[in-house]
Amino acid sequence: MCWIEQSIHGNFPEFDCLVDRLIELALEEDLGPGDVTTQALIAPDRKGAAQIRARESLVVAGLPVAHRVFQKLDSQVQFFSVALEGQEVTPGSILAQVRGPLAAILTAERTALNFLMHLSGIATYTRKMVNAVSGFPTTIVDTRKTTPGWRALEKYAVRVGGGTNHRFGLFDGVLIKNNHLAAVGSLPEAVRLAREKSHHLLKIEVEVTSLAELEEALTAGADIIMLDNMDEATLARAVALTAGRALLEASGSMTPERLPNVAATGVNLISMGALTHSAPAVDIHLRVVG
Amino acid sequence: MCWIEQSIHGNFPEFDCLVDRLIELALEEDLGPGDVTTQALIAPDRKGAAQIRARESLVVAGLPVAHRVFQKLDSQVQFFSVALEGQEVTPGSILAQVRGPLAAILTAERTALNFLMHLSGIATYTRKMVNAVSGFPTTIVDTRKTTPGWRALEKYAVRVGGGTNHRFGLFDGVLIKNNHLAAVGSLPEAVRLAREKSHHLLKIEVEVTSLAELEEALTAGADIIMLDNMDEATLARAVALTAGRALLEASGSMTPERLPNVAATGVNLISMGALTHSAPAVDIHLRVVG
Amino acid sequence: MCWIEQSIHGNFPEFDCLVDRLIELALEEDLGPGDVTTQALIAPDRKGAAQIRARESLVVAGLPVAHRVFQKLDSQVQFFSVALEGQEVTPGSILAQVRGPLAAILTAERTALNFLMHLSGIATYTRKMVNAVSGFPTTIVDTRKTTPGWRALEKYAVRVGGGTNHRFGLFDGVLIKNNHLAAVGSLPEAVRLAREKSHHLLKIEVEVTSLAELEEALTAGADIIMLDNMDEATLARAVALTAGRALLEASGSMTPERLPNVAATGVNLISMGALTHSAPAVDIHLRVVG
Amino acid sequence: MCWIEQSIHGNFPEFDCLVDRLIELALEEDLGPGDVTTQALIAPDRKGAAQIRARESLVVAGLPVAHRVFQKLDSQVQFFSVALEGQEVTPGSILAQVRGPLAAILTAERTALNFLMHLSGIATYTRKMVNAVSGFPTTIVDTRKTTPGWRALEKYAVRVGGGTNHRFGLFDGVLIKNNHLAAVGSLPEAVRLAREKSHHLLKIEVEVTSLAELEEALTAGADIIMLDNMDEATLARAVALTAGRALLEASGSMTPERLPNVAATGVNLISMGALTHSAPAVDIHLRVVG
Amino acid sequence: MCWIEQSIHGNFPEFDCLVDRLIELALEEDLGPGDVTTQALIAPDRKGAAQIRARESLVVAGLPVAHRVFQKLDSQVQFFSVALEGQEVTPGSILAQVRGPLAAILTAERTALNFLMHLSGIATYTRKMVNAVSGFPTTIVDTRKTTPGWRALEKYAVRVGGGTNHRFGLFDGVLIKNNHLAAVGSLPEAVRLAREKSHHLLKIEVEVTSLAELEEALTAGADIIMLDNMDEATLARAVALTAGRALLEASGSMTPERLPNVAATGVNLISMGALTHSAPAVDIHLRVVG
Amino acid sequence: MCWIEQSIHGNFPEFDCLVDRLIELALEEDLGPGDVTTQALIAPDRKGAAQIRARESLVVAGLPVAHRVFQKLDSQVQFFSVALEGQEVTPGSILAQVRGPLAAILTAERTALNFLMHLSGIATYTRKMVNAVSGFPTTIVDTRKTTPGWRALEKYAVRVGGGTNHRFGLFDGVLIKNNHLAAVGSLPEAVRLAREKSHHLLKIEVEVTSLAELEEALTAGADIIMLDNMDEATLARAVALTAGRALLEASGSMTPERLPNVAATGVNLISMGALTHSAPAVDIHLRVVG
Repeated sequence: MCWIEQSIHGNFPEFDCLVDRLIELALEEDLGPGDVTTQALIAPDRKGAAQIRARESLVVAGLPVAHRVFQKLDSQVQFFSVALEGQEVTPGSILAQVRGPLAAILTAERTALNFLMHLSGIATYTRKMVNAVSGFPTTIVDTRKTTPGWRALEKYAVRVGGGTNHRFGLFDGVLIKNNHLAAVGSLPEAVRLAREKSHHLLKIEVEVTSLAELEEALTAGADIIMLDNMDEATLARAVALTAGRALLEASGSMTPERLPNVAATGVNLISMGALTHSAPAVDIHLRVVG
Repeated sequence: MCWIEQSIHGNFPEFDCLVDRLIELALEEDLGPGDVTTQALIAPDRKGAAQIRARESLVVAGLPVAHRVFQKLDSQVQFFSVALEGQEVTPGSILAQVRGPLAAILTAERTALNFLMHLSGIATYTRKMVNAVSGFPTTIVDTRKTTPGWRALEKYAVRVGGGTNHRFGLFDGVLIKNNHLAAVGSLPEAVRLAREKSHHLLKIEVEVTSLAELEEALTAGADIIMLDNMDEATLARAVALTAGRALLEASGSMTPERLPNVAATGVNLISMGALTHSAPAVDIHLRVVG
Repeated sequence: MCWIEQSIHGNFPEFDCLVDRLIELALEEDLGPGDVTTQALIAPDRKGAAQIRARESLVVAGLPVAHRVFQKLDSQVQFFSVALEGQEVTPGSILAQVRGPLAAILTAERTALNFLMHLSGIATYTRKMVNAVSGFPTTIVDTRKTTPGWRALEKYAVRVGGGTNHRFGLFDGVLIKNNHLAAVGSLPEAVRLAREKSHHLLKIEVEVTSLAELEEALTAGADIIMLDNMDEATLARAVALTAGRALLEASGSMTPERLPNVAATGVNLISMGALTHSAPAVDIHLRVVG
Repeated sequence: MCWIEQSIHGNFPEFDCLVDRLIELALEEDLGPGDVTTQALIAPDRKGAAQIRARESLVVAGLPVAHRVFQKLDSQVQFFSVALEGQEVTPGSILAQVRGPLAAILTAERTALNFLMHLSGIATYTRKMVNAVSGFPTTIVDTRKTTPGWRALEKYAVRVGGGTNHRFGLFDGVLIKNNHLAAVGSLPEAVRLAREKSHHLLKIEVEVTSLAELEEALTAGADIIMLDNMDEATLARAVALTAGRALLEASGSMTPERLPNVAATGVNLISMGALTHSAPAVDIHLRVVG
Repeated sequence: MCWIEQSIHGNFPEFDCLVDRLIELALEEDLGPGDVTTQALIAPDRKGAAQIRARESLVVAGLPVAHRVFQKLDSQVQFFSVALEGQEVTPGSILAQVRGPLAAILTAERTALNFLMHLSGIATYTRKMVNAVSGFPTTIVDTRKTTPGWRALEKYAVRVGGGTNHRFGLFDGVLIKNNHLAAVGSLPEAVRLAREKSHHLLKIEVEVTSLAELEEALTAGADIIMLDNMDEATLARAVALTAGRALLEASGSMTPERLPNVAATGVNLISMGALTHSAPAVDIHLRVVG
Repeated sequence: MCWIEQSIHGNFPEFDCLVDRLIELALEEDLGPGDVTTQALIAPDRKGAAQIRARESLVVAGLPVAHRVFQKLDSQVQFFSVALEGQEVTPGSILAQVRGPLAAILTAERTALNFLMHLSGIATYTRKMVNAVSGFPTTIVDTRKTTPGWRALEKYAVRVGGGTNHRFGLFDGVLIKNNHLAAVGSLPEAVRLAREKSHHLLKIEVEVTSLAELEEALTAGADIIMLDNMDEATLARAVALTAGRALLEASGSMTPERLPNVAATGVNLISMGALTHSAPAVDIHLRVVG
């Protein structure tokens, strides 16, 4: 049976074989034929309890994944989330309690924490970005610059952090980028072809690098236009020029400092690859308590 | 057939099914049932060429992985590495040339770059840490705090960056940590049990948090001792106390600034989780050139 | 754990990894990274109930498969069969009740119905063929002309419809066909070789296209003889000629209208590829009722 | 390496692990531990040639899949397509030539033909439906009522037949159906939620069963509206009422006879489940010719 | 692509995914994340050559499997069989030459030899048993007492040794054993049920433990009768009693010494589990020669 | 979920995907599309009970694996171990009781017994070897000469028999063998390279064939030295020469008779490939009892 994701909003089950395969990869690479230290030191029938705690301020994300890791290793391990997905916690806060065979807890510890530290790192970083544009009607969205194998989990962490997801992959949204335009040779022709050949439930987004291209895209009837690497003045002119005829997505060279200024230009969305490829891990540890 | 890793030193083949499964996960999650944009815009028989370039200064790592990504998508794509694994390059440098069916190049682009940007990020960050202790006989080693699913690749990137690998996982080295000691209740007993129950080709490492525990570990005959979260003064006393009877590994709260001071204490190894869990991605892009 | 088939006769468990892999393929191809509509509209903790109903007269087949589909998506979904496998039902009949997380029910609906509509279509069509020869001691058997990936399920639906299975595949029965005979060049030599080289628990069947070949096959000691594309008069002469020395299987160009006449010739078996490759799907739907 | 689909338009490679897994299922279920007949009768070093021929008029679809089947069984088998995907051929036409180890050709024959007969059956049936609305600007689209495991292949066969694909699955298009509306309780609220929670590259389609609901959907701003089971008069009034504010898709109880009348109402799209779930297989066979 | 078995008779390709999965298991369990010794000592670009030699008299079986092992690890390794499958060789004989990247040769060595030593062990032991009944028309057959995971390979080694295969598994032959008879309660009823419910290409075999049961089985029309654990005198009476009405298979407590006496009773087949579960490995080694 | 091994010492769970994949291979190869005999004879709702008994004196190993086999086939089968892993039992002893659906019990019987007979065979043989050196401080260790696919299970059976495991595979211990030395050309250089390039938790073992090489290895600082194919006199001189500077492992041509003499020389370990590659299966059967 594949992975059942527990969403941030409750218990909505989501079948995801890729996530489950990632968790199995993670356990296989760490355990190989066995945890030689724990096997030598911990009697197999010994029970124990442990706490998972934050060592710094962070936004929690990934407890259902940590739960799944322990459960896969040994279905007798019980996992109780104490914190909620998306909750901001202070250093020392207990995130979860774990009970059951002590050997299994110690063997799964590192893998479970590695998931938690990375996903909470993304949620924490995303929260900061979202807060940076609070007060503006601007949406912070992620990109396809995710860690290979982690697309679903990292996009989940972005949502947990308060961000919004862009398309999932190459298959559920049309986004005509520079390399496509160079190959086709004409922006209007590219938009026309995309409209004709993709199914009728998909909108068309085009990446432009100048206001001239923006006008061309608007005329061609693009639904969304990505403004690549423009400064705030240019973005503001783009917003004025567009006048609501399409959604505008600003992209490229976004830093926390720039975000309020970019949001102030009136663009609808700001996309940031750093949400998923450069958020540092946050510090979380597991301590046996009995 | 599983993955054949091309090592930094040459063409030594390494069979690794886990890495190959990760690459397949990455392609499946991004492509799903197909790249709707490229399918709409690029004629299937069109050929093209592209360059992969660095957009900042970085240490290159992961070109064989990028090669494998293109090859898996379409075996007709040719990939020529221009830079060497481990080479430091300046912004704008060409890392690789790609030639073949243009649609395949555009569809694989993002996945290949996601691998390259993450692995080169680790190599770049590791190189900085290794340089910070140059002149000292200290070894910078990684940890098991790796991105789940990426253990082999991230440890490879650490080597490419000039770092040294610790044990691969739970199965190829005995490391008795705080939680184990708490469970056993006696450090000497823990060392004795580990020696008795693990096979005769493995050494025994113990984590200690005080000089008193260090003495206990030395008396128990530990081969390696991890000094957890000690300041430089304590580390220096630990080195003096040990007097070569065991290898000493400093761990915890390592920052680039501290590294030279820690190295100066005479510890043999410094282990850093940040090498693999918090190195930011570096900026690399692909541009169609014909 | 692989698939446990619930047979038509009761609960006999049958381990079948191929069927389970087919169900996973079906869920993966439909869900991909998630059901965007249901995720947007249905709260994850909402429970619901639904009925699966026939919209036309049909023979029921595949309820255990539909059960398995819901169970794979979310183990909290309860599935109660109301109709029995093999039962003939009228339009509007309730086939099953489903209860549990509403989102999971709606997400699995289409996949479960697709299995049910196809398998019940085969059972319904087979039942008609079996009824067409009622009163004759003739057996209606299927062929290897099944939908790739569906061999076990479609042969199950044939049994549910009242038909009889031929060999499962290339491995559990010797059937020497025209192309084999052309290659060997001699029917008696082909029978001899097959007897010598296959294991002693297998009988030998040969396909013939004329009465002359039939005589040759009888002389060679074939256990079963397939009479390919013969008209009723020829079939009757074949039965007389054989006089019980071998089982006779009529094959080719069978239509519902011809069946009684073919059965009247006295052949033992009639094989029909259409049972599995051309039975139209029957109309079954799912309606949320609470 | 996963499946590389050869599209109808040329050689555009498409990575599809699900299709490849289906082909493997098909070979495993038919071959099991081996083809006992062929192993007994055909010397392993014997070479041979065969032709694949149509036995009735049909539209060809699936030759690249047949090619892949032979190739998977034995990479020494050569496969030459004679007919083009999408070509209408007469009875007796040669579709492909196969050359290589005779045993492999005979062992793969049935599986390859089973794919070809089913996919060509869908293309042939789709072509008839598309021809039935020729002269109208109406698009014939498929549905998610596909054979489980076959989504990509059957949608490919629909395109080959001249039809157009609807969304691929639950993940690349929002379609609010009756069961969703019943659960939400309000069509406008359902549209609002779908717009808010799905990503910005997706349009919103709603299924309605009356003109009153149609007005509600138009007011709510639905991009596409599915008109479920309406007669031609009602469809015509729906078209007039909509006046181009949304795309209209007629669905339910479509028969070849009704199609021109439905198209004449002015709806934009007609969707038919029968394209994929009830198209009968067409007759194609393989004959050894040397 | 799954395994292509090279049969003893030539190059007949046989698709076998289970064997291929076994070879992958074997490589994964031995290599894990890498061969630390070879990686440390052998430069990756170094080429080498090696010989595989017999260290005792033996019947060769498994060279194609050894070939596959090297090929899976590194496709650049070339493997040349010097001995033939089934050939009896003297100590010191060269069985194969291997050339290519030296590191790959050393890393694959043990896995390849483990396959060869086990399969040649079975072939060697089988040859002795077959020779023990030479001059009699008795067939030595194997059983389902094979090493789990190895069914196809061990049955292949039996054929290579000159033995004959019984049914492959539970699916391609009906064999009613003691436990079945105890459950049904009546031998004739068991035979009748088996005939009725299994497909028409399968014969029926029954296990009996006395001459009274043998008569019952003959009357019931069993095609083959297994005589379980009978002494030579009883076996001879069974042969006389049967008078050619069924094939007779002697089974249980067979030793090399008894074989000629058992064969002399006139039974048609003698089945021996020891062929596959207790044949000792033979000694084969690999030596680097350049 | 992967395999949870129940260790000899209790219930310590060990995640092992490779073992689980082996069990699935075993069931797939034996069952294929179904057990035709049991399906024909045993009603699916019939319950039953059976005993697993030893037919000869043996050391029990593998009951948790047999348990897993029944559980995988049908989770309703209950399995109660009567004997303990490692227990020596007499002929006729009950090893386990099995209860549940009779059909499932009969279908899984052979696969479960095949695991039990092989693993108990290894434990029984190992126990004899360990007993042969009782009174000496010598350790009997296994090798990498295991049945491909069975590494973890066979090493487990060795432990159950009282033996000790050597390294698991190529990845968790450095062992420089003849072929490596030949390639490097210098024993001291090989030891130096291995020390430098392998991680700091691994010891270094070297294989030597003469006392001269032994001295070289001692000087080079090898931690363990394998004495290959030496007679007892030479082994005794090696022990004297080494004087505790390294562990000594005798290997090659070990027979039960030689073991006490070899142990008497004072070597620390004796390694025997025969423990895993040539231990004959022991006789265990299953009998339905109700």
